[in-house]
Amino acid sequence: MITLDDVHAAAARLEGVAHRTPVLRSRTLDARTGASVHLKAECLQRGGAFKFRGAYSMISTLAEDARRRGVVAYSSGNHAQAVAIASGLLGSHATILMPADTPPAKMEATRGYGAEVVTYDRYTQDREALGAALAEERGGLALVPPYEHPAVMAGQGTATLELLDEVPDLDLLLVPVGGGGLIAGSATAAKALRPGVRVVGVEPEAGDDTRRSLAAGERVRIETPRTIADGQQADIPGRLTFEVNRRLVDAIEVVSDPEIVAAMAFLFDRMKLVAEPSGASALAALLAGRIDAGGARVGVIVSGGNVGVARFCELLGR
Amino acid sequence: MITLDDVHAAAARLEGVAHRTPVLRSRTLDARTGASVHLKAECLQRGGAFKFRGAYSMISTLAEDARRRGVVAYSSGNHAQAVAIASGLLGSHATILMPADTPPAKMEATRGYGAEVVTYDRYTQDREALGAALAEERGGLALVPPYEHPAVMAGQGTATLELLDEVPDLDLLLVPVGGGGLIAGSATAAKALRPGVRVVGVEPEAGDDTRRSLAAGERVRIETPRTIADGQQADIPGRLTFEVNRRLVDAIEVVSDPEIVAAMAFLFDRMKLVAEPSGASALAALLAGRIDAGGARVGVIVSGGNVGVARFCELLGR
Repeated sequence: MITLDDVHAAAARLEGVAHRTPVLRSRTLDARTGASVHLKAECLQRGGAFKFRGAYSMISTLAEDARRRGVVAYSSGNHAQAVAIASGLLGSHATILMPADTPPAKMEATRGYGAEVVTYDRYTQDREALGAALAEERGGLALVPPYEHPAVMAGQGTATLELLDEVPDLDLLLVPVGGGGLIAGSATAAKALRPGVRVVGVEPEAGDDTRRSLAAGERVRIETPRTIADGQQADIPGRLTFEVNRRLVDAIEVVSDPEIVAAMAFLFDRMKLVAEPSGASALAALLAGRIDAGGARVGVIVSGGNVGVARFCELLGR
Repeated sequence: MITLDDVHAAAARLEGVAHRTPVLRSRTLDARTGASVHLKAECLQRGGAFKFRGAYSMISTLAEDARRRGVVAYSSGNHAQAVAIASGLLGSHATILMPADTPPAKMEATRGYGAEVVTYDRYTQDREALGAALAEERGGLALVPPYEHPAVMAGQGTATLELLDEVPDLDLLLVPVGGGGLIAGSATAAKALRPGVRVVGVEPEAGDDTRRSLAAGERVRIETPRTIADGQQADIPGRLTFEVNRRLVDAIEVVSDPEIVAAMAFLFDRMKLVAEPSGASALAALLAGRIDAGGARVGVIVSGGNVGVARFCELLGR
């Protein structure tokens, strides 16, 4: 378990490094939902997603010599860029393992931030074994997990710490759920600072592993979800994140892919924000009426904006 | 002429009403330009553009009875929505004259903010005569011009007041130029607070009426420009704005439509911001190397984000 103190400590490490992302309002959004909605725009975070908070938080806790040896991460997505940026800022060196069929643009972006990309065949090679071999070969690299680490969860929770600093009297907090790190850190901060707040996670319909796990009282594995929300394709909650979330999360709601697309369109048209599908899912639940928020002060985390123009236009189909 | 005091007075009227839009940074942008770049994201302003600042600033100076009689404006663009929102907030009633061939979505958006839309045939009807007749028929409506008014210019300049509040030591300020109100208010604030700052306006190549006018020392009319930057299609600078700008603006640079599109793509990919063509033009000048900013602290106003998804995807052509 992590505590509010851990989130505060992570915030101190991130001070002056992570962007304090803006909290945005819209009268149209309030009118449509009957609520008072506060969007925490983490798509405007460094690297385009909340992931930077967790990666930097964790790498900055490494001892000087470990940091100098370097870090390793598995990711083809936002976590890769987050680790690349964070390690660069901290004078470390990042090796990122990516499936060989990762879109070249994502590899380039990660290299552009100064990381080394090592590819593997996701059908024939075991990435954990590969990562372990690589770590040993290079004299011991620290693994930076995308959510399964106290300093990562605490770092990710700083987004909610900032939101509550600006809007202390939230009634409801909506958070996208993938591996569960963002909501674990967020719920830790929110429940400590505002015990009455309701913390609701949002998953894609096809990827409701956390919802099922909470219902079962234990971690449930599902088939790899088919959804446009590629940041939420976890097939089982993390061990550490689930320990936190089963105690602190009040409910999980699910959204369909078309509901996510509608939220992306709303964010584009009305908020002038680019959100990737995972980033828009929490707002999607609100806009689609999946959550009754009438009269409530609602915080919604727009968790990331890493979607290419081509994919964006394809999804929005216009 | 307006003064810094006018801009401060406008800021006081806008306090708690206009969004204090964020100032965003990007290491990639700094690396690409060799400068330290600060983007003032006015696309996140109410109504999606800086225009709200001017409209609200002006309408709030009207006497109570004038405000109650209502206001009128000519616009098919951002100014229409700005006047609609501002008049609603101030308990006034807005009538907006729009050409009959305005895209229905824009009319709907304006009506959605509570304004009444009156259409006219731009080929056969004289909008000034129509507006005057309408104003008289309704017992005297106050005209809210898009830039030709001291309170409008001063209100628009509050964007730069906020930028300088966060980044007081700017060396260079880049501002999109249409009718010239935003840069007039901005230059007034900037030159008073930071006399050494260089204020550069940016126009589309085809719509360089202000550049030509500054070179000629008097207002020059050009043919209606053909450019994707529909917010910068002015064919002659305003009388009032030109009076300010010929004294305070150091230079005008121009950008091509493809350079504007490249800046829109950069804002989407890297900053997760939606900018309309006019809104991206100042950044375009910087990214295209039209302005030597090496080593400088640069402020850039991203002035608006009102572009539909369909048009956006068409322009970015992917």
